[in-house]
Amino acid sequence: MPDPAPVPLIALFTDFGLTGPYTGQMKAVLARAAPGVAVVDLMADAPACAPQPAAYLLAALAPGLPPPGVFVCVVDPGVGGARRPLAMQADGRIFVGPDNGLLEPIRRRATTATVREIIWRPERLSASFHGRDLFAPVAARLARDGWDAVAAADFAPLSGVDSGSGPVPVGGDWPDDWPAVIYIDHYGNVMTGLRAGGLPENATLAVAGRRLARVRTFGDVPAGAALVYENSCGLLEIAVNGGSAAAALGLRIGDPVAVVC
Amino acid sequence: MPDPAPVPLIALFTDFGLTGPYTGQMKAVLARAAPGVAVVDLMADAPACAPQPAAYLLAALAPGLPPPGVFVCVVDPGVGGARRPLAMQADGRIFVGPDNGLLEPIRRRATTATVREIIWRPERLSASFHGRDLFAPVAARLARDGWDAVAAADFAPLSGVDSGSGPVPVGGDWPDDWPAVIYIDHYGNVMTGLRAGGLPENATLAVAGRRLARVRTFGDVPAGAALVYENSCGLLEIAVNGGSAAAALGLRIGDPVAVVC
Amino acid sequence: MPDPAPVPLIALFTDFGLTGPYTGQMKAVLARAAPGVAVVDLMADAPACAPQPAAYLLAALAPGLPPPGVFVCVVDPGVGGARRPLAMQADGRIFVGPDNGLLEPIRRRATTATVREIIWRPERLSASFHGRDLFAPVAARLARDGWDAVAAADFAPLSGVDSGSGPVPVGGDWPDDWPAVIYIDHYGNVMTGLRAGGLPENATLAVAGRRLARVRTFGDVPAGAALVYENSCGLLEIAVNGGSAAAALGLRIGDPVAVVC
Repeated sequence: MPDPAPVPLIALFTDFGLTGPYTGQMKAVLARAAPGVAVVDLMADAPACAPQPAAYLLAALAPGLPPPGVFVCVVDPGVGGARRPLAMQADGRIFVGPDNGLLEPIRRRATTATVREIIWRPERLSASFHGRDLFAPVAARLARDGWDAVAAADFAPLSGVDSGSGPVPVGGDWPDDWPAVIYIDHYGNVMTGLRAGGLPENATLAVAGRRLARVRTFGDVPAGAALVYENSCGLLEIAVNGGSAAAALGLRIGDPVAVVC
Repeated sequence: MPDPAPVPLIALFTDFGLTGPYTGQMKAVLARAAPGVAVVDLMADAPACAPQPAAYLLAALAPGLPPPGVFVCVVDPGVGGARRPLAMQADGRIFVGPDNGLLEPIRRRATTATVREIIWRPERLSASFHGRDLFAPVAARLARDGWDAVAAADFAPLSGVDSGSGPVPVGGDWPDDWPAVIYIDHYGNVMTGLRAGGLPENATLAVAGRRLARVRTFGDVPAGAALVYENSCGLLEIAVNGGSAAAALGLRIGDPVAVVC
Repeated sequence: MPDPAPVPLIALFTDFGLTGPYTGQMKAVLARAAPGVAVVDLMADAPACAPQPAAYLLAALAPGLPPPGVFVCVVDPGVGGARRPLAMQADGRIFVGPDNGLLEPIRRRATTATVREIIWRPERLSASFHGRDLFAPVAARLARDGWDAVAAADFAPLSGVDSGSGPVPVGGDWPDDWPAVIYIDHYGNVMTGLRAGGLPENATLAVAGRRLARVRTFGDVPAGAALVYENSCGLLEIAVNGGSAAAALGLRIGDPVAVVC
């Protein structure tokens, strides 16, 4: 099944919610500034105001979208303060977002990564909605013209931070994988910040005072039983066959987990 | 008001939720594999893990979208197990989804229907997300190239099941209309699996120990009163004028209803 | 950063919810009737069945989308009754919606506005879903052919109401700004119907028995403290730094606020 050559797309990864006025306004800017480019809501309910779990989630989801693409990443409790807006090219994908660690796991895992500070500013910049006013216009330009065209133009003289000389500021002290709950989906499945790839097939996870054996999928345990398995984006996920693991185990974002064998 | 000739579109009917990471990943695949084809979220909150109510809902909504179009239908609690992925052409529309009955009411009501098993598999097939890995790529190919091109090509040698020789496996024992609650919308309106078209204008519905007379619309009863009417997709729907029927009558998906005259 | 010339877009402003079957069906109509035109969910959770707060919200959001564009505005508890469908051109933007006041603040604030009654009717008009059956087809035609083409054609002989001879029926007795809560977002931030532009930088807001000083942004007050600031669409908004203002102050849509200096 040969597919067409990949077209550019813009993927949104935010904590704005799909309801409410925020995602819509951002998409209106993108529809105008990058006409014809597909815009995908990769995630609008990333952990709210919580860059660390959001960062590990983003790093798990991004590899599923082959280049070329621009990711607009906004989990940004410091908006309007001193934090800097960044643009990053990593393994052919482009990311824009704040310097609060949100892009850090991707940068660290990338074969090649270049990070720049965005010093362009729009004519009108609100205090609280840089997703619409700053990140979306920059992302649109990157999607239309590519990293090199933008980096060379007066539009976006990016400067200052470079992965060649050090980590992305803030978040550089986070581990490669984060042994904690990073997301709970609407079925009650519980994602962890641990990649399954490097762990034994028979790994056991300690969580909420219990030990759960890793299996292949839901049907490998009886109905109502808890399990750990590799989810569809490569993370260890805690689930209950036919039920809600979050409710059964009382788990919340940030709760610790541990691999015990 | 003559409209343009209908363009192909891809309609998503799932229980994935719009929030969370699932719908976005599926759309990213579609944006790449069927560039330029409009993708519409027909419904992302179909009854979770409940193919029967979801099936009657899908059968009510699909006729509102004239061909050509491909429906990606995923309410699939058996994903990763022995259930088979199906492709169906029914009255000019194309559907892909699991063989758990989800497509059965449409097949049964169609003038002409052809059902095939999808035996194509992607290079990487996750255990839990066939919507992204299998159904979306197949739907994109069907939207781009049409049923005949796909059926004839090595991409999708569909075989095995055919409506000519029997019903879609699983669900063949469901009634033509299902006398039960199949969906509750965010206003609290309660949809049933009963099509209004074949029922008398003065039909009475027995539900939750009460009898409700059928009227034309909300304004035909006093504020706060319950009513039954033909909703915008042709189903009998229970509502309260200016209130929530689900709350007032304590109704849930699956609860029985009965036409009593 | 010169952007491309603005392309037409269709913006949806409704209380339909993104989940549920309504927005999807409306988008399917638009995808067919205006192929290639970008459709943006500006807001799908406008205050349900409450045209007044919804009207002030719409009036705050619309100016952020430069013309040309068509806004499909449906907060329409009177659907199926005697209310009239309207089309309005105001300062280069086009709006369609019911005559319940939803379009009134925009009309009143516009430099130039023309209002017409839509007398075109589709072949099949459901009793409860004019968003899909009437407003979406009209909006698609307006997006494709423009106001003048449509107004002159047999498709849409609009007549009757004109802003030259009086206000939009219903809602004409609302104030220019509404001193009340009009929306609560998913962070718990509380929007008011007061535009910040005309108010002093040091204005104080009385709400829920408290007085809150206006500041520039969240970081200007200690964590956990309440504040008032100009939000990203120009309205006075009540927030709590790092918390939910709606929960902390017990606020709901419609609650009064007052500027006290």
